[in-house]
Amino acid sequence: MSVVANRLVQVLGAVLPGDGPKALHEPEFAGNEWAYTKECIDSGWVSSAGKFVEEFEARLAQYTGARWAVAVVNGTAALHIAISLAGVRRDEEVLIPALTFVATANAVAHCGASPHFLDSEPSALGLDPAALHEHLARIAERSGGGWRNRLTGRRLAAIVPMHALGHPVDMPSLLEVAGRYQLPVIEDAAESLGSTLGGRHTGTFGLAGTLSFNGNKIVTTGGGGAILTNDAEFARHARHLTTTAKLPHAWRFLHDEVAYNYRLPNLNAALGCAQLERLPDMLARKRRLAAAYRNRLAAEPAMQFVDEPPESASNFWLNAVRLEVDDVEGRDDIIGALVAAGYHCRPLWTLMHRLPMFQGCARAPLPVAEKLEKTVIKLPSSAKLVQN
Amino acid sequence: MSVVANRLVQVLGAVLPGDGPKALHEPEFAGNEWAYTKECIDSGWVSSAGKFVEEFEARLAQYTGARWAVAVVNGTAALHIAISLAGVRRDEEVLIPALTFVATANAVAHCGASPHFLDSEPSALGLDPAALHEHLARIAERSGGGWRNRLTGRRLAAIVPMHALGHPVDMPSLLEVAGRYQLPVIEDAAESLGSTLGGRHTGTFGLAGTLSFNGNKIVTTGGGGAILTNDAEFARHARHLTTTAKLPHAWRFLHDEVAYNYRLPNLNAALGCAQLERLPDMLARKRRLAAAYRNRLAAEPAMQFVDEPPESASNFWLNAVRLEVDDVEGRDDIIGALVAAGYHCRPLWTLMHRLPMFQGCARAPLPVAEKLEKTVIKLPSSAKLVQN
Repeated sequence: MSVVANRLVQVLGAVLPGDGPKALHEPEFAGNEWAYTKECIDSGWVSSAGKFVEEFEARLAQYTGARWAVAVVNGTAALHIAISLAGVRRDEEVLIPALTFVATANAVAHCGASPHFLDSEPSALGLDPAALHEHLARIAERSGGGWRNRLTGRRLAAIVPMHALGHPVDMPSLLEVAGRYQLPVIEDAAESLGSTLGGRHTGTFGLAGTLSFNGNKIVTTGGGGAILTNDAEFARHARHLTTTAKLPHAWRFLHDEVAYNYRLPNLNAALGCAQLERLPDMLARKRRLAAAYRNRLAAEPAMQFVDEPPESASNFWLNAVRLEVDDVEGRDDIIGALVAAGYHCRPLWTLMHRLPMFQGCARAPLPVAEKLEKTVIKLPSSAKLVQN
Repeated sequence: MSVVANRLVQVLGAVLPGDGPKALHEPEFAGNEWAYTKECIDSGWVSSAGKFVEEFEARLAQYTGARWAVAVVNGTAALHIAISLAGVRRDEEVLIPALTFVATANAVAHCGASPHFLDSEPSALGLDPAALHEHLARIAERSGGGWRNRLTGRRLAAIVPMHALGHPVDMPSLLEVAGRYQLPVIEDAAESLGSTLGGRHTGTFGLAGTLSFNGNKIVTTGGGGAILTNDAEFARHARHLTTTAKLPHAWRFLHDEVAYNYRLPNLNAALGCAQLERLPDMLARKRRLAAAYRNRLAAEPAMQFVDEPPESASNFWLNAVRLEVDDVEGRDDIIGALVAAGYHCRPLWTLMHRLPMFQGCARAPLPVAEKLEKTVIKLPSSAKLVQN
C-alpha cells in the first residue's frame, strides 16, 4: 500500500470507528417510512394520484423556500423537463460542467440539444463563473435576439450548473454572467437538498432547480426527483408535461402537447414524506461527520478536505479529499487500497467530454476539472456513521 | 335519461349488485403487498438495485413465456426504449393505431419520429392487419433497403399495435404484413398482461412487447412497466439504455451512449412481486365479470358486448359495450347519465389524429376507429366487483 493510501486508511479509521465495511452512502429508514407506506397501500392510491405526492410537494416547497415543487420519477426526468421548459430546442447548445454525473449531459441530449462543457472552480468543484465568463467572451457572438457559439453556429440556450457533492456553486456570480448572455439558468441540485448559500436553498436561484431522491441521496423515495421554481407558469407547465399533458375533463382523454409520464407515484412519495421529516437530523449528523473529517485531515499536509464554500451551508452529501496524485491510475491504486481496507471510497465522475457519446461536443479549456478528476476521492458519508 | 342510458343502468345494476359507486378499475392489495414492501424498506434496498426488481423480472418472464423481461419506471418508458431499439430514428414514421392511449404516440415522438395512424378492427378494437395491408399497398414505396411513405418521403420504421382493453390483436396476420414491408413490430401490451392468443402471451409475438403496471392496470407497482423480448441482445441493450448505459467497473463512472434513468425502483418491484402472485385469481374473477356482462348484454338488441377475439383469452382488463349512437356528444350524454347513477363508465380514447400535436401526422382512412370512438363505452371492471 502506498504511503498516501496508508495515511488515508489511518484517517478513515480515526473518523469511522467500529468494525465492518463502511459504505459510501446508505439510506436510513428510522422514522415513519413504513407507517406512511402502509397507509398508502391501504388507501389503494399507490399510483399517480393520492395525498402523499401532493404532501411531498408541499413539504419540499416549504423546506426549500421555492414557491412550487413538482414531484417526478427521478432527477433525470426533472432535468429533462426543466431544460426543455427553459426553451432549449433541437440542435442547440446547453452549457454544463464537464465534472458532473452523466444525467446532466443526458438530459440535455434528451431535449435534442448538445452539452457544451465548462471548467470547474477548484475548491467547491462546481461550475466556475469566472472561467465561464472568459470562455463566453471568446466563443459567444450575438445572433438574432440571443447568442450563439461562433465555432459551431449553434444557439447557446441555457446554463445548467450542478452543486457537486452538495457544495453550492457561486450562484450570484453565475447569474451575473448568465444575465449578460441572456441565458436561463437551471440548477442541477440533485446532490444538494439541504444546502444553502447566503441562507437561500440551492435550486431556487435560477429559473428552476432540480432535485433527486435516488437511493444514494441524502433522502430517498426509491426513485424520484422534483422541479423547484418560483415561476407559477413554469410550475404549471412542468406539471402538465409530466402528466401526459392531459386537460381537465370528467372523462374525455384530451391532451394538448407531446408530453411524458413522469409523475412520481404516490407510493414513492409516501416514503419521501417520512424521509423529509428526518432531513434536519440527517443534516446535523452529516455536518458532524464532515467536521470530523475536516479536523482529522487538517493534520495531513498532503491531503485537503473538500469543504463548503464561504457563506454557504453544504449538506455534505459526500465528503471528499484532495490528494497529490499524478493520474487516474494513481488515484485508482489508492481507491483500490481503501476499498480493500473496507472503506468504500470512490472517484469523482469521469469527465463528460471523455465519454464516447459526448467526445464531439463543444467545450471550454478544462484544466481545473482535469486536475480534480484525478486528485479527488469521495469518502464514506452516510449519516448513520455518526450516532446521536 | 335516454332509453339507451336507462337500459344500460339496468344492465349494470343486474351485473354489479350492491350499493355505492362502482369505479372503472381499482387496484386490490390482498396478498403479500405489505410483507414484501416492508421487507424491501427494512433491507435498505429501495432504489435501482435489490432483489425484488430481479425477482419481478424473472416472474414476468416466466409468466409471459418471454425469454427476457426488463423492468422500467412505466409503460411509456418501456415503449420509448423498445421503439428506439427497433431502429427508429429522428424524422421517420412509426405505424400505430389511431385508437390508443396517448402514450403510444408520445413514445414515438420521444424517439424524434412521427406517428402514422392506422384504422382498427371493429370487433376487438385493435389494429386491423387487412386495413394496414391495403393502406401500405397505396402509400409505401421501396427506398434503399426498406420502405418509405411516398406521400411524406419518410422512412417507415416500425409498427406498434396495441392490445386494446386487453383483447389480442391478430398477430399472425399482422406479422405477415409487417414481414412484407420489413417492419419490426413492437407490441404495446400495456393493457394485456394475462391475455393470450393461441396460448401465446401478448407482447411475445413481435421483436419486443411492453407492459404497464400503472395504478389502473390489472396489477400495479404504483408506477412501472416492462419490456418483453426473446432476443438476448435486445434485452441486454434495453437494460443498458435504462440504467444510464453504465459499464461494469468497481467504481469508475463509464457510460458509452446517451441513455436513461428508467430502471424500476426495488420498492415498486416489491409491490409488483406480490401483485403477480395474485394475477391468476384476478384473471379468473375478471373472466367471471366479463361472462356476467356478456350474458346480460346478449338480451339487449341495441347493445353489443366487446368480446375477446377467436382463439384468444383476453384478460378483460376493461369490459366495454358497443351502442348505437350518432356522435361523441350522444355518447357523452349516456356516460354522464351512467356516472350520475354511480357507474364510472368512460369512453375509449380520443383518436390520436384529433389531438393538436398529432393533427399534422400521416394517417390511413379511419372509418372503423371513428365509429368505435363514438359508440363504445367502457364499463366498471375491477376484479373486486366479483367475490370468490
